[in-house]
Amino acid sequence: MGIDPGLTRCGLSVVQAGRGRQILPVAVGVVRTPSTAELPERLLRLSAAVGEWMDEYRPDMVAMERIFERGNVSTVMHTAHAFGVMVLAAAERGIPVYQYTPSEVKKAISGNGRADKKQMTNMITRILGLSEAPKPADAADALAIAVCHCWRAPLIARTTRAHERTATA
Amino acid sequence: MGIDPGLTRCGLSVVQAGRGRQILPVAVGVVRTPSTAELPERLLRLSAAVGEWMDEYRPDMVAMERIFERGNVSTVMHTAHAFGVMVLAAAERGIPVYQYTPSEVKKAISGNGRADKKQMTNMITRILGLSEAPKPADAADALAIAVCHCWRAPLIARTTRAHERTATA
Repeated sequence: MGIDPGLTRCGLSVVQAGRGRQILPVAVGVVRTPSTAELPERLLRLSAAVGEWMDEYRPDMVAMERIFERGNVSTVMHTAHAFGVMVLAAAERGIPVYQYTPSEVKKAISGNGRADKKQMTNMITRILGLSEAPKPADAADALAIAVCHCWRAPLIARTTRAHERTATA
Repeated sequence: MGIDPGLTRCGLSVVQAGRGRQILPVAVGVVRTPSTAELPERLLRLSAAVGEWMDEYRPDMVAMERIFERGNVSTVMHTAHAFGVMVLAAAERGIPVYQYTPSEVKKAISGNGRADKKQMTNMITRILGLSEAPKPADAADALAIAVCHCWRAPLIARTTRAHERTATA
């Protein structure tokens, strides 16, 4: 499961890793909470929606985009509150959480850590064999994060096993 | 209930408003999560601990210190994640959340928005009639936030009622 965290719009995706680098899309969507609502109400709605996705798709792991501290401080703080609530939702279900920076996701998908939104959307559409580009951008981002993790997870697993072998040697 | 949010140390307090400006201390403590643990595990522990306090003391409202975006970015982000998880804990229980900036709390307690930690601790100790100063600083801060809210809540309630009268007039 891939999550592009946000309070106003939060991108969610579920993919299934196939053979080699093949990845099958399972679900994609965006959860929105109204900016007119109070913070507690918004976090409650977000937590419920993300929890429903986790309970329905039962992902083996969750990959989230790290918060990039850029732009409006209030927006960054809202995203950070939402991020905490979503990590908690995964933790409550025993689902491990992995984090990637925006540039790690871009590099994994397009080979370029500075790829723009259009390049990323084109690559994700092609990689997943979709008939049309996922919209809005948060949905495409959530798919990109999930694909990034699928491609990097085997490497992470090998590294962990190597460490364990070293530790037990 | 007053909360001084943090991931490594989170100050919690419960007070009871008496007549006029009188306030009775009920409970104070600090929840810690080990910096060696992973973020999901830490948020899970924090959420459980704060939830236990809320279930035991059943506060009418929760007052939290707003995050001040100063210092280490990673610490601020951790605090923001913790903040989101605690606001969620209150929202899940239907407890309203109020937020105050550090300088609002200092002003309410000591009359000076720039009071230092020692002045604040001395004032809190005196206001609550404690036999010794609360420790650590996070515990004293959590009490200060709760007292700040008790003193400001009647004003907030009057303002809200005035607005409602205006709205229905």
